[in-house]
Amino acid sequence: MSDEEAESNGVSPVLKADWFNSRWGREDQRGNGNLVTREKVIEATQLIKTGEIVSLGMPYDARMPMAPGRAYALRMPGGPYGDKSKTIWNDEFIATEIGQIGTQMDALGHLGCMCGMRGDKTKMLFYNGNRLSEMWSPYGLKKLGMENARPFFTRGILFDVQGLKGRVLDVGEEIALADLKACLERQGIAEQTISPGDAVFVRTGHGSRWYTETRTFYDGAPGIGLECARWFSSLARGLRRRGG
Amino acid sequence: MSDEEAESNGVSPVLKADWFNSRWGREDQRGNGNLVTREKVIEATQLIKTGEIVSLGMPYDARMPMAPGRAYALRMPGGPYGDKSKTIWNDEFIATEIGQIGTQMDALGHLGCMCGMRGDKTKMLFYNGNRLSEMWSPYGLKKLGMENARPFFTRGILFDVQGLKGRVLDVGEEIALADLKACLERQGIAEQTISPGDAVFVRTGHGSRWYTETRTFYDGAPGIGLECARWFSSLARGLRRRGG
Amino acid sequence: MSDEEAESNGVSPVLKADWFNSRWGREDQRGNGNLVTREKVIEATQLIKTGEIVSLGMPYDARMPMAPGRAYALRMPGGPYGDKSKTIWNDEFIATEIGQIGTQMDALGHLGCMCGMRGDKTKMLFYNGNRLSEMWSPYGLKKLGMENARPFFTRGILFDVQGLKGRVLDVGEEIALADLKACLERQGIAEQTISPGDAVFVRTGHGSRWYTETRTFYDGAPGIGLECARWFSSLARGLRRRGG
Amino acid sequence: MSDEEAESNGVSPVLKADWFNSRWGREDQRGNGNLVTREKVIEATQLIKTGEIVSLGMPYDARMPMAPGRAYALRMPGGPYGDKSKTIWNDEFIATEIGQIGTQMDALGHLGCMCGMRGDKTKMLFYNGNRLSEMWSPYGLKKLGMENARPFFTRGILFDVQGLKGRVLDVGEEIALADLKACLERQGIAEQTISPGDAVFVRTGHGSRWYTETRTFYDGAPGIGLECARWFSSLARGLRRRGG
Repeated sequence: MSDEEAESNGVSPVLKADWFNSRWGREDQRGNGNLVTREKVIEATQLIKTGEIVSLGMPYDARMPMAPGRAYALRMPGGPYGDKSKTIWNDEFIATEIGQIGTQMDALGHLGCMCGMRGDKTKMLFYNGNRLSEMWSPYGLKKLGMENARPFFTRGILFDVQGLKGRVLDVGEEIALADLKACLERQGIAEQTISPGDAVFVRTGHGSRWYTETRTFYDGAPGIGLECARWFSSLARGLRRRGG
Repeated sequence: MSDEEAESNGVSPVLKADWFNSRWGREDQRGNGNLVTREKVIEATQLIKTGEIVSLGMPYDARMPMAPGRAYALRMPGGPYGDKSKTIWNDEFIATEIGQIGTQMDALGHLGCMCGMRGDKTKMLFYNGNRLSEMWSPYGLKKLGMENARPFFTRGILFDVQGLKGRVLDVGEEIALADLKACLERQGIAEQTISPGDAVFVRTGHGSRWYTETRTFYDGAPGIGLECARWFSSLARGLRRRGG
Repeated sequence: MSDEEAESNGVSPVLKADWFNSRWGREDQRGNGNLVTREKVIEATQLIKTGEIVSLGMPYDARMPMAPGRAYALRMPGGPYGDKSKTIWNDEFIATEIGQIGTQMDALGHLGCMCGMRGDKTKMLFYNGNRLSEMWSPYGLKKLGMENARPFFTRGILFDVQGLKGRVLDVGEEIALADLKACLERQGIAEQTISPGDAVFVRTGHGSRWYTETRTFYDGAPGIGLECARWFSSLARGLRRRGG
Repeated sequence: MSDEEAESNGVSPVLKADWFNSRWGREDQRGNGNLVTREKVIEATQLIKTGEIVSLGMPYDARMPMAPGRAYALRMPGGPYGDKSKTIWNDEFIATEIGQIGTQMDALGHLGCMCGMRGDKTKMLFYNGNRLSEMWSPYGLKKLGMENARPFFTRGILFDVQGLKGRVLDVGEEIALADLKACLERQGIAEQTISPGDAVFVRTGHGSRWYTETRTFYDGAPGIGLECARWFSSLARGLRRRGG
């Protein structure tokens, strides 16, 4: 991307002026989740060999890390029972943020870009050019909420960077594209088999700090940078680029 | 079940004295979720023909029905943005019961039986004989919580009773075993193919009242009774019984 | 106020361009609460004759009216007791809005005026010209919060309009200044005795609908209008105006 | 109190068997708050000399200490404004425990005594012999709730133990009755003037650790012990005892 583009945009050295336009049409609220087609589902079923189920989430509990300002309260209003029967039950009440609590998945309405003056909500743009002023309400998002993400059922590709390097990655450490490619080679996965709609999982080992470095867990993390993000993006569009 | 059994039990005309003992061992917290074995997963993949994904849940929103005493509050503490970048984000805060809010699935720790005097928590028994006094804390269940239910990936069998009868079932209407069997016949499913670990879905049409009869939604519902429950239970144990 | 003023202001037919400037100085966050001086406290003690204590608030409970979108949940995580002693205790957890829940008192940071374009938080002005962009945070107000209101201890003047009219006022009914003056006469209170720092209470009877017309309670209410508000304002500044 | 009494009681070396009986009658839910009579209010007004208002509470904010297991979340669902006017407003949502959050006052329903077997709620007794099984509901206390405490307006007596000792008291340090009496002497307050219905305030200086030793604030505190509590109790009953 040229400097001129960045300047004309004024928002970011990376984003193009039309960054928010979706390949899925003006009204789309699902983004690349659309890549999980029926064909993709059928394809994924062929990959299931051992039948082992692996949960990707951490349980919600009071010991989990909290991003700054977050709260998590689970309370049990315990002890009630029916007047006419011997059935008893437990209820529970929860009060918490959803984002950065436990294992989370961003909705398309989570992150946006301030393209105008500070505080001008009509110029705060999200996926597909949605304006904050139109999608936000005090009682929930009117557009781009998580309800638009359908269940994912697709091939998952694990990039075991922790395994590759033989160590938990450092906080702030950026994973190079060469690392991801080395993972594929080490794990015997041919790059050409990666196709649009696949889900990628990058194992950094940061999760191992969940209970042991709880207070500092959200201070920073290892992860991919712009180089890898561009590569993933090109894969999602079915492009093959030399060197990524 | 004989009257003697009921008397010796003193709790219920249906439950036997050892009702709480699990077939999965004294320490089990997963119940018949254990039937979702690796083999069951492999078996289920063979059934996927069209690749269509159907969500079984209703979205959480402020218009949904509430069981008495429940609360649901989603609030958007909106408008923050980073000091050093042009990235903006939406957060959200939720305060609500979990049970009887939206589409729910009971954990094994939800329902139990008062087997002793009122208020005696040491005689309030749950699955596998767990005592309320040992499993409960004000900050969440120490045993039988939802974290013990692993993801379900298995064959699902829909009993389309609404389709069979050509109408939404009445509130309080009990589905007969003959209805379920008629559903199988109508849908071309051989009863012998039902096996332990299958998930069953009984379509009553009550869900169609979600937004139209919101205030009375939890006053009552159609559903299965003891007859059908016993049949499902025998299927889960791999038993075939005449007349059920 | 002239039409020209209204035009030049563009915000309201009532507010002057400098509406937000406080008589208490640029940094003040307490407003006319400052009128409750030490002298006012001493003065108020002279008025106490019977020693009767009257609470002005309604209790918080699940039956109270709710303004649209509000939630109120009080839950008792009951049953814990100390491991080493026989002391037991009840805790409680609350999740709720503060505003329009139960009996409320507005902080100066509650209501403001949109003086610029929609969504421009730098032009959303509050008491003393505070900008929303500077006083707001997702975790509470940084300025004009309720913590700036000190306890009120002052003379209270009840305008018993319900008693005057012999009926509960209608929803939407505006109280005339003549009504307030008739209350004073009927109750034997000389207008000249009202002085800056006095608290006024206008009894409309709307509170009698609290539990009987709960669902519609917030649809509207009787109350004072601009005429009475201007009179109260002049009294707070120690002005005497003919006809108010 | 004799050992025999303690034994026959079995609950506590201090409590007598009839500890829960109130001097205010079987149905009372207000306790010694009843001592704030009309006469007491009139009496208190005579003591007001300077008119200074002093708030006894700490503001609620996210930096305050938390007893173990407590949560406090204040969130601002900010930015809404009316469609037809230029009025804007701030709302706020709070989710928190009430007890041990900020400056608290116990209701009579907070602390009780387990007089029977563990878990037997019919033998968990509170003020005036109220049983937990009868007063508790998952949605709030049916008896002995804070709504029974009326506003206090009475003489307050400060025991400035911090001033007496010239230091903040240590965590766990018990204040001796002699200390309280020395405070009276130092402050020029005649013990004979203390009468039933007076409120007492014991200044330990522990509050100075609020923001500086936040994490350990609830680990322990200085305060009065049994000796002083008995003295206060005798004063509340209008008794004068030699040596307390």
